Amino acid sequence: MILLDGVLHEGRSAPFDLADRGLTLGDGLFETMTAFGGTVWRLDDHLERILGGLDVLGFKVPRQRLADDVRSLASRAPASGAVLRLTVTRGAGARGLAPPDGPRPTVIVSAAPFDPVLMFQPASLAVSAIRRNDTSPLSRLKSLGYLDNVLALADARRRGASDALMLNTGGQVACASVANVFCLKGDRLETPPVEDGVLAGIVRGRLFELAPAQGLAAVERSLVPADLLNADAVFLTNSVRLIQPVAELDGIRLPTSPMVARLYDALAGEILAETARDPRG
Amino acid sequence: MILLDGVLHEGRSAPFDLADRGLTLGDGLFETMTAFGGTVWRLDDHLERILGGLDVLGFKVPRQRLADDVRSLASRAPASGAVLRLTVTRGAGARGLAPPDGPRPTVIVSAAPFDPVLMFQPASLAVSAIRRNDTSPLSRLKSLGYLDNVLALADARRRGASDALMLNTGGQVACASVANVFCLKGDRLETPPVEDGVLAGIVRGRLFELAPAQGLAAVERSLVPADLLNADAVFLTNSVRLIQPVAELDGIRLPTSPMVARLYDALAGEILAETARDPRG
Repeated sequence: MILLDGVLHEGRSAPFDLADRGLTLGDGLFETMTAFGGTVWRLDDHLERILGGLDVLGFKVPRQRLADDVRSLASRAPASGAVLRLTVTRGAGARGLAPPDGPRPTVIVSAAPFDPVLMFQPASLAVSAIRRNDTSPLSRLKSLGYLDNVLALADARRRGASDALMLNTGGQVACASVANVFCLKGDRLETPPVEDGVLAGIVRGRLFELAPAQGLAAVERSLVPADLLNADAVFLTNSVRLIQPVAELDGIRLPTSPMVARLYDALAGEILAETARDPRG
Repeated sequence: MILLDGVLHEGRSAPFDLADRGLTLGDGLFETMTAFGGTVWRLDDHLERILGGLDVLGFKVPRQRLADDVRSLASRAPASGAVLRLTVTRGAGARGLAPPDGPRPTVIVSAAPFDPVLMFQPASLAVSAIRRNDTSPLSRLKSLGYLDNVLALADARRRGASDALMLNTGGQVACASVANVFCLKGDRLETPPVEDGVLAGIVRGRLFELAPAQGLAAVERSLVPADLLNADAVFLTNSVRLIQPVAELDGIRLPTSPMVARLYDALAGEILAETARDPRG
């Protein structure tokens, strides 16, 4: 089930302009969200973020159009839980890189089943040789060009890890293939600033709000891999899995802390309160 | 006119699987070629390059399938000249970055008119703040993720230049938004090695072959912007425009040399000999 420019298609295939710059140049952005009982969790945050990103790319789509399309698909998705993807491209263009003067953006929303079995599964990380390009605004956006992360993930799996840890061009921690990185040190929850080539993750933002109630001070600080090795606990965050504890970095076992599960429960509790469904299954 | 998986479609629209990883993740590569009188210039070089790139991405497409599709569209394109684009993606996949075990790649070929008026037009370059990520294998491939270059080009145009000069993470010259960079210094033709985050351009490769007949020694050498300012001439190369002289770098006028036009004529002469059409119009 997919929504292309407001038109619903059963299956995944639809008539598509193959000159769409999303396909030809990766010229677009996306968001990944969860919906439970037809309610999209933190939809406003996701819309805010993608609209801010489209400003960087230099084209606009009405917020209402995006909200309507996402809600429309969410209402048709399984009530037990769905992962929604919102894709916005600059639309079709002539040959070459220069965008059309009056772009007609393409909006796609798709849904996949939400799988509670994946939740809170520990990750093992391998540092990728591919650096996150923090000189590019795209390092702070969910752009369609995800192939660096695809290659980094494949390489990490070949090396026996479950995910890649990507550093930026200065050797500082940026992110995993599709997640922010946090470390817990005493009562401090530390994560790199967006300037280090980091997406302003929605769950990342929630943790800044939730930390004080757990007796934690959440701070942005540039991190190097040694900071992760010396932390009390390391974990990943994203909108689908909420929190994934990190058990290993380049083959070195990392300690954990009951606090990681407490933060996970706090996030799952938010979803339960807002959607009346528990993502923990 | 477009060929999608071997099926010809008039216009640009066709039934398309919107879960194609080319669209969702930029998971694919492309080539841009010219065809005159139905003959694709240096088709074997383009096929060689994209097949080598697909090895890096970790999936295969039969060479014959690509050759057949490109030739099929070339035979239908205007005999006076066409720009062909070959796009190969990993095909559809489930949600997430991990590729399917048995990918079914998508092959698209499209055609646009070739415009001789654009040939040998001088370029003015502005150094981009967005660096070419030479830590990524993609910096040496024509991957679908071209948005860094789109943003760099847009910024260069805002600053009054016609194109961006992209440096790598070490501050060395990488490329323009869609072209290799050469400089002429005495009897030396210098261009950065691919390790600096550079595509192994087809015209770039031709110049290595053609240089000796012009009394030049073509060499790969890492370049910094000051090398361009101190050159006898600077020019860009790509498969569509062949050679573009660079007249200006960040507002500083650059000298030129009759040798640049001689190299351009040598390339155009090759096309004339191989296709019986003169790309100079």
